[in-house]
Amino acid sequence: MTDPFANRRLRPSPTGRAELDALLTELAIADAELEERVVKREDIYRGRVVVVERDQIVRTDGSESSRDVVVHPGAVVVAPLDGEGRLFLVVQYRFTGNGAMLELPAGSLDVHEGVREDAELAAHRELEEETGYRAGKMERIGGYYSAPGFLTEYLTLFLATDLRPAGGDRLSPDEDERIRLVRLPLGDAIAAIDAGIIEDSKSIAGILLLARRLEAPEPLSRRARSADASARLGLNPP
Amino acid sequence: MTDPFANRRLRPSPTGRAELDALLTELAIADAELEERVVKREDIYRGRVVVVERDQIVRTDGSESSRDVVVHPGAVVVAPLDGEGRLFLVVQYRFTGNGAMLELPAGSLDVHEGVREDAELAAHRELEEETGYRAGKMERIGGYYSAPGFLTEYLTLFLATDLRPAGGDRLSPDEDERIRLVRLPLGDAIAAIDAGIIEDSKSIAGILLLARRLEAPEPLSRRARSADASARLGLNPP
Repeated sequence: MTDPFANRRLRPSPTGRAELDALLTELAIADAELEERVVKREDIYRGRVVVVERDQIVRTDGSESSRDVVVHPGAVVVAPLDGEGRLFLVVQYRFTGNGAMLELPAGSLDVHEGVREDAELAAHRELEEETGYRAGKMERIGGYYSAPGFLTEYLTLFLATDLRPAGGDRLSPDEDERIRLVRLPLGDAIAAIDAGIIEDSKSIAGILLLARRLEAPEPLSRRARSADASARLGLNPP
Repeated sequence: MTDPFANRRLRPSPTGRAELDALLTELAIADAELEERVVKREDIYRGRVVVVERDQIVRTDGSESSRDVVVHPGAVVVAPLDGEGRLFLVVQYRFTGNGAMLELPAGSLDVHEGVREDAELAAHRELEEETGYRAGKMERIGGYYSAPGFLTEYLTLFLATDLRPAGGDRLSPDEDERIRLVRLPLGDAIAAIDAGIIEDSKSIAGILLLARRLEAPEPLSRRARSADASARLGLNPP
């Protein structure tokens, strides 16, 4: 397994907003006071989807414990938004939930010979495999852990715009995937969250973060870069 | 393992909104057409935190495959909101992320002799263990899967209000947990999400769902029940 933290974004720098910088200070104190230093690590299960490791840890007060960690290479989740403000979602049968689920396109990072796929490349690949569309623009707009209590999976969230059908040479879904594409206005996707029809945390977080981003005034440094996307989305410039 | 779907909410009934009912129809079609019926199930790893199963599945077209499933009993996530509109968050060191994280209080359902804890009882227990507070009111406001591609974990989201310190006989955190409590206005928690300071999907989804719920007009049947909470939160009635 390659470095499990390679795709994780570093914690943000001080923001200049007192209430947020106080939180960053609180987290830095907790990093120091609550650190769990790994002194021994062993694989206890290597499966097709995940690896389970047992880590022996030592705390700053000298106490010791062990942690079972489900190791995952990380993943991407893509919010594809077309020129008419429609979000592209996929429907798949999820054996974990005993039924079909409506989700943003997403997938794990490929690992070849110990080297992990770049997250942005994975976002382009998953978008094309799962929807049949390619994006002219792919922008990181967030990221989050799936279940940080026991699973290392970190998902990077991308906004995909300037969408075009991939055409005849499109990448196909994995052999084992059966996927249906659903396009709907962003407002309907949010209503589907409120109604409990979307029940997948990466999709709920991703769609609501996207909605905040499209509504919020952006920092000055981003305005130039996003003016083009805003125009394509039919939004007023910030 | 008890029934892994016991705490999952059933898919919503038709809503009367055409655009949402079309999604429910789409999911029902996918349930039927894409069903993966489990014909054989075996445990391939039983660990302290998770069980890995291998399911042999048959699709409606007769094709077969196998799925490795990480089985988890389910969990709760609690959004504790005090009378001043402050959200209670916890800071813990997360070895999965190599640092401290800011999250909503949460934890797995206990399983004793094959019987799984009720989600609402677990929410009361986790709130007290992790924050030292008890809630006079605990209301389910949502639920979601952590990583439905391979993990059965379903989280039920609760809004906890009417908060009081637990006093001398409070339930303590698990022996292995070191937790710091942070109280901050809901708006600051949302700003922390936007800034990338909160990077846990259950907390991002939970906080943004809570914010929508507090802003949105509610169905008539809910108004009477929520008027009291709204008043305590200093909100205008819907």
